[in-house]
Amino acid sequence: MKTLQHITCLFWLAGLSLVQAQEYKPSSVNQAGKAFPQVNAEGQVRAQISAPEATSVKLDIGGVKYEMTKDAEGVWTGESAPQDVGFHYYQLNIDGASVPDPGTKYYYGAGRWGSGIEIPAPDDAIFAMRKVPHGNVVENLYFSEITQQWRRNFIYLPPGYTTSDKRYPVLYLQHGSYEDETGWSSQGHANLILDNLIADGEAEPMIIVMDNGYAYKPDAPKEGRPESVFEEVMLKEIIPMTDAEFRTLADREHRAIAGLSMGANQTMRIIMNNLDTFSYYGGFSGTANFGIEGAIDVDTFLNGAFSDGAQVDEQLNLLWLGLGTKEPERFPKTINAFVDMLKAQEITYTFYESPETAHEWHTWRRCLHQFAQKLFKD
Amino acid sequence: MKTLQHITCLFWLAGLSLVQAQEYKPSSVNQAGKAFPQVNAEGQVRAQISAPEATSVKLDIGGVKYEMTKDAEGVWTGESAPQDVGFHYYQLNIDGASVPDPGTKYYYGAGRWGSGIEIPAPDDAIFAMRKVPHGNVVENLYFSEITQQWRRNFIYLPPGYTTSDKRYPVLYLQHGSYEDETGWSSQGHANLILDNLIADGEAEPMIIVMDNGYAYKPDAPKEGRPESVFEEVMLKEIIPMTDAEFRTLADREHRAIAGLSMGANQTMRIIMNNLDTFSYYGGFSGTANFGIEGAIDVDTFLNGAFSDGAQVDEQLNLLWLGLGTKEPERFPKTINAFVDMLKAQEITYTFYESPETAHEWHTWRRCLHQFAQKLFKD
Repeated sequence: MKTLQHITCLFWLAGLSLVQAQEYKPSSVNQAGKAFPQVNAEGQVRAQISAPEATSVKLDIGGVKYEMTKDAEGVWTGESAPQDVGFHYYQLNIDGASVPDPGTKYYYGAGRWGSGIEIPAPDDAIFAMRKVPHGNVVENLYFSEITQQWRRNFIYLPPGYTTSDKRYPVLYLQHGSYEDETGWSSQGHANLILDNLIADGEAEPMIIVMDNGYAYKPDAPKEGRPESVFEEVMLKEIIPMTDAEFRTLADREHRAIAGLSMGANQTMRIIMNNLDTFSYYGGFSGTANFGIEGAIDVDTFLNGAFSDGAQVDEQLNLLWLGLGTKEPERFPKTINAFVDMLKAQEITYTFYESPETAHEWHTWRRCLHQFAQKLFKD
Repeated sequence: MKTLQHITCLFWLAGLSLVQAQEYKPSSVNQAGKAFPQVNAEGQVRAQISAPEATSVKLDIGGVKYEMTKDAEGVWTGESAPQDVGFHYYQLNIDGASVPDPGTKYYYGAGRWGSGIEIPAPDDAIFAMRKVPHGNVVENLYFSEITQQWRRNFIYLPPGYTTSDKRYPVLYLQHGSYEDETGWSSQGHANLILDNLIADGEAEPMIIVMDNGYAYKPDAPKEGRPESVFEEVMLKEIIPMTDAEFRTLADREHRAIAGLSMGANQTMRIIMNNLDTFSYYGGFSGTANFGIEGAIDVDTFLNGAFSDGAQVDEQLNLLWLGLGTKEPERFPKTINAFVDMLKAQEITYTFYESPETAHEWHTWRRCLHQFAQKLFKD
């Protein structure tokens, strides 16, 4: 009897181990038909690649390298530590060469086109492909006279745009550092988030313009940190072009601007310099005092833009801030310093905390999901 | 004096070698700021990657692997044989692992997302980004009731579409095997080719719909070659959706269909089954008799669709065929067999030969450039 129990127990253990192995599922952003990389319920990433002659293969995710091991057929497999929910850029390292994983689709982030992986979150339904009317994402090429370069943006047109004569309000929505104009409609899923919100009656149909935040004069130095002319490009080129090419409601009451991280900093500067142009602001994981964690001097910060609190409060229809609970300290510290200033100036604001997310795209998807519901409802 | 001559000669040789080394230039489809891969005037590809611990690194292009060599710092460099002008899919092989080159942008072809390289052609101006009005490429998501899957297409809207009330003719334009709906507006540059033709008054403004030619019933077997339902999706879903969502001229006189390779075969079958729907046909590097190099039996081929030559001639506004001079034998052989049948049936056709190009995208860009000029001019 004892032996039978023992055998049963072994079967049970074998079964458990099988269940755990099966828990790894192909990532939702894999190329069609590719079994790897995989993700388990703990958020671990399992990568696999055939490299029979290699002596060292590593999974490099979030700046941490995980050793992989080789089987008899020369196939390397390895797992990462649990990752935060959401979207992460990563790469493989094969005998010292850092390369994209051939199993995934490719995304622009971390300053390169490379592999991405999605760690499922409990609220992934916000960007699920549902059987609801879908808007379109339009690729728009334009020559900037200011930068003397060809530039590109992506423009979300809400469901119904192509078949109606209606005019729509516009959200100008910016990416973060080392990202580009593709981020929000690719890994950010801005289009699907809005399609779902609009279908559920939770957001007003709106146009979203997603441009590239890097813009410099043609004679700007190639090294160091040249002066950005993105504000000038936004005001003199992007907005007039959008209003000319698409059926917009072209006034401040129907214009919002938001961004993530570097984009939050940029867009806060742009709106505070141009309150005649925009009336809604969203800062996702960022504010214009980035790098300054101490008290903000309202007389000098952004040239005193917040010094008359009552006037700012009157002019802004929305001052919205969002942050993930697992972001590096410098983000909550600077954003809290900004919030302290708002309180002292008696400026109304909305603050949203995204549970269990880091300085990554799932924080920003949630921010857009929340923020978009507050726009253009007056 | 002899020594001086010798030294001069050495300098001259050193200079020549420097000139030759400088002849390699970064590929036009590299990621921003990436120096490699490079291409020289002979069409050779030079790849480079740091892989200090690797024992073997190869450049794998067109199914041929070229050995690369390691320098003292662990950087591997290697060159291919001269390649045909145009766009090629390729990969690197690092100690047995086939991976994308981290230097390039990524494209869908050869059944995967991976690296691409552009060998300059004398007529690259056909898809140059010129200071002319540019149309838009629209990403369109739709649920197919026939396949019970989400599908996607890209729709080119010509310059002026967004700001006018005009209706436009439509070209339905298909990719080849192991490619997808991204090919024509990405490596194919269909949008830039049309922007330039329209600006020069050489093509009528038109809408171009670029869909995915792979479509199967939900219960189709996963293995083997299941029956395609692409024709049904095209007729019952794509065309009605296009006519409902965009300002089309919705009749056969204003509808063209074309494709490359597998897409040429598919679209020829579609038009011959649906002459009430389309009146212009373009077959780029392909015809519906692919695989049959002998004489075509007009009574049985496509169920006798070409058996009444006079009627076909009357019904088709254009039967256009194109081919690169360096394509594998099976393509000219089958296309010539098809042309022989057209001659015997006294059916009018246009035949275009693309000089010095293979079964690759530059042939198809040239085909589109020629074909588009013949459309919708009646």
